[in-house]
Amino acid sequence: MFIILQWDKSDSMKNPKNKFSEWYTEVIQEAELADIRYNVKGFLAHMPWSVRTMKNMYRILEAELEKKGHEPAWFPALIPESYFKKEAEHAEGFSADVFWVTEGGSDNVKFSERLALRPTSETAMYSMFSMWIRTWRDLPYKIYQSCQVWRFEGKSTKPFIRGREFYWTEAHDVFETEEEALKQVEEDMEITGNVLKQFAIPFIFFKRPEHDKFKGAVSTYAADSIMPDGKVIQLPSTHFLGQNFSKAFNIKFVDREGKERYGWQTCYGPAVWRIFGVLVAIHGDDKGLIIPPAIAPLTAIVVPVYFKGSDKAVIKKARLVKELLESSCIPAKVDERKEHTPGWKYNYWELKGVPVRIEVGPKDIEKKQLVLVRRDTGEKMTVKENEVVEKVRKLSEEIQQNLVARAEKFFKEHISEADSIDKLKQILSEKGGLVRISWCGSTECADHIKAETLGGNIRGAPLGKEEKAKGSCIRCGKKASQQVYVGKAY
Amino acid sequence: MFIILQWDKSDSMKNPKNKFSEWYTEVIQEAELADIRYNVKGFLAHMPWSVRTMKNMYRILEAELEKKGHEPAWFPALIPESYFKKEAEHAEGFSADVFWVTEGGSDNVKFSERLALRPTSETAMYSMFSMWIRTWRDLPYKIYQSCQVWRFEGKSTKPFIRGREFYWTEAHDVFETEEEALKQVEEDMEITGNVLKQFAIPFIFFKRPEHDKFKGAVSTYAADSIMPDGKVIQLPSTHFLGQNFSKAFNIKFVDREGKERYGWQTCYGPAVWRIFGVLVAIHGDDKGLIIPPAIAPLTAIVVPVYFKGSDKAVIKKARLVKELLESSCIPAKVDERKEHTPGWKYNYWELKGVPVRIEVGPKDIEKKQLVLVRRDTGEKMTVKENEVVEKVRKLSEEIQQNLVARAEKFFKEHISEADSIDKLKQILSEKGGLVRISWCGSTECADHIKAETLGGNIRGAPLGKEEKAKGSCIRCGKKASQQVYVGKAY
Repeated sequence: MFIILQWDKSDSMKNPKNKFSEWYTEVIQEAELADIRYNVKGFLAHMPWSVRTMKNMYRILEAELEKKGHEPAWFPALIPESYFKKEAEHAEGFSADVFWVTEGGSDNVKFSERLALRPTSETAMYSMFSMWIRTWRDLPYKIYQSCQVWRFEGKSTKPFIRGREFYWTEAHDVFETEEEALKQVEEDMEITGNVLKQFAIPFIFFKRPEHDKFKGAVSTYAADSIMPDGKVIQLPSTHFLGQNFSKAFNIKFVDREGKERYGWQTCYGPAVWRIFGVLVAIHGDDKGLIIPPAIAPLTAIVVPVYFKGSDKAVIKKARLVKELLESSCIPAKVDERKEHTPGWKYNYWELKGVPVRIEVGPKDIEKKQLVLVRRDTGEKMTVKENEVVEKVRKLSEEIQQNLVARAEKFFKEHISEADSIDKLKQILSEKGGLVRISWCGSTECADHIKAETLGGNIRGAPLGKEEKAKGSCIRCGKKASQQVYVGKAY
Repeated sequence: MFIILQWDKSDSMKNPKNKFSEWYTEVIQEAELADIRYNVKGFLAHMPWSVRTMKNMYRILEAELEKKGHEPAWFPALIPESYFKKEAEHAEGFSADVFWVTEGGSDNVKFSERLALRPTSETAMYSMFSMWIRTWRDLPYKIYQSCQVWRFEGKSTKPFIRGREFYWTEAHDVFETEEEALKQVEEDMEITGNVLKQFAIPFIFFKRPEHDKFKGAVSTYAADSIMPDGKVIQLPSTHFLGQNFSKAFNIKFVDREGKERYGWQTCYGPAVWRIFGVLVAIHGDDKGLIIPPAIAPLTAIVVPVYFKGSDKAVIKKARLVKELLESSCIPAKVDERKEHTPGWKYNYWELKGVPVRIEVGPKDIEKKQLVLVRRDTGEKMTVKENEVVEKVRKLSEEIQQNLVARAEKFFKEHISEADSIDKLKQILSEKGGLVRISWCGSTECADHIKAETLGGNIRGAPLGKEEKAKGSCIRCGKKASQQVYVGKAY
């Protein structure tokens, strides 16, 4: 059973290598987010508390995508091998990741062509786009789908971080011109910002170096955040595809001058599943989860605190408070379980990360008051009964802001600068995070830096904030072509 | 391009065999609901208009399930063959339907155990339930997931009616007692009623005869509706599983007396995808779709009608009307396309089934009025500009009610009675629908009836309204055991 997390997260941040991972594994299990015991490696059974939170996250993400002109669509989960192979680089890049469906039915009929379980949907969608897009009037064409994807990952899996089945959204856009497509990359960054803000997750949006781009793309951009153990983690990424896929899939349109031209494409892939994992990691503490109020399945949990004789009145009041909150669209619940003490319930709901706890006891009824407790700071306050809706609303906003501020503080503290390989090595091994360096731009130096720092990747230069190259490459000493950030990735 | 449906649906109802199917296929394509040209048999590419409608349908269904105490969960899409085979009847019943994943990765590693693409999730979920459920305090345990399922259908497929990939919701519940589980069947009927009412789809909830139940279930219940060609179609079904699966999957709990017992289970499977198909078929007319206002992606489409010189003022007014509606939570849009005439736009949005059209012209601006047109009746009315929100809201309600009334009228007209096989044959071939007969209860007679009527299935007796047996079985003449309904199914 839950109750006490065995690992001290604040301690684990000091000793990231040992403890963070255990803390994370335990919180996933104890807060009943997912069960890793499903008998297919890298596949999770997702339990209601995580699903309810992720559904709220999906709602925010999809609303934002639609506000920016994307329409929802659903494409098949199975992709014929021949579609899959149309864009050579893409097929090569993903071939290691594919689960293949090869037979069906009671007679185990072998298919003449294997079907890929989609690892991503470019090839499924673009085969249809070529039939749907006719003229410039159909453009920009902006579609998204929220779905599961499957990847036959060789690397070790981790719940909500890396899995063989995960939940994401993919937006695929076609434009008349290269300029419009490149503007979409900026819009994707804006969408990422608007959405991650509501999850209280800070990030930098990088343009990835050449050697680290999506297979089939001209260039790749991605948001990186920093985990409590100092490792960096890729969140939504967006890819400028140029005309690579439109040529492979024959996505042509008649332009304003009546000429046939190939479309310019982008795709954007925010994974709610992974963002949820990062959110658990970044905001949680030794008591368990802390879910940002903007997406918490419950904003407030009402715990009746009674002794024999007072139970009826206390439960009645607790229900009244809950109804008051719900009639103001604040999701709330009363924990009426008789088999547990109030103290047990406090721990339980702290573990689940509900932003506000409301305690109702006989004395509170007498004094027409309620006790409110913030999950993020543990602060306790007494409020007048008739002000509870207003107070809970205000508290939610404060908690949201506090989580944003806390996360940003940690994030900023983990942005550093290094003017030598030794310094870079030291920072990455001591506190991790993102470290700014000068780099000549060669893959050779990137590889060396990675080897010497035991895994430090060049994450790229921040989009729109390309910093002028200063001095010389920290590895080869030649003139630096750009300032980039290095981090050890998940 | 769209514009004119080639087939007259009202005519096709008279000649169902020839025309309804063509009308249906054409409306799916012309209204841009789905594209059948995706290169895997029985798999569709779903376009935004159907997806937006189905997302609204999902919202209503999920809210209703949650109101009735179900919590959302997400289970893996892949099921190990060994899980799949634990309940023998179930495995046998579904084995013909399974797509198998057998290999993965660039080296095409063959898996030691095949993985089924879930055709339904009993076996995935129940393997976890056995670990999650401990005592009677964990019960009732009510979970649902909305997901895709895949079935290697041999029968011919039809968009939104029968496919190898479709979108549904499955609710899986565990109870302490048989009585509670059987009550859940009634609750599932209630959920079906509350939900289908909002989609304006009438149905009868049947208890299926023994020979027609879900493989692994003790008994099966299902909602049947009637299509415009007189064929009956199964909508949500619910299954009383008894302890068949809890024994196979070891789902035990410690009861109130401290004894270990097996849980009693039900599962319920409403498929939004198929319900959408039925909704298209039932409400549509020769102009295209009619989407019930409760789930329409747009309640109102605003069409500016202008001549040279008046365009600016008219578009400004049209946008104002749209904003007025949206600020009252009525989804609306202005069709500002310059390349099309107002008449073209009227046809376009009629085809899409938007409930209300609003026309704005220079004269209307002068007179501070607007022209409203109902999609269901074509009725045109002039309203004062400052009353538009109220009128559109009222009109939506009227359209919703009218669609319900119309559909119920058709449904009732297609419920008949037959006291002989000849009469049954005649009704089924002339107008179809559901025909009440007396039946002895034997599978032999059911098979004969089916053969003699060229496909008339016994759908069962209505749940909770079991009618006393009258007279003798229409086939064998022996004493009838029950009154049941017969229909030709999709």
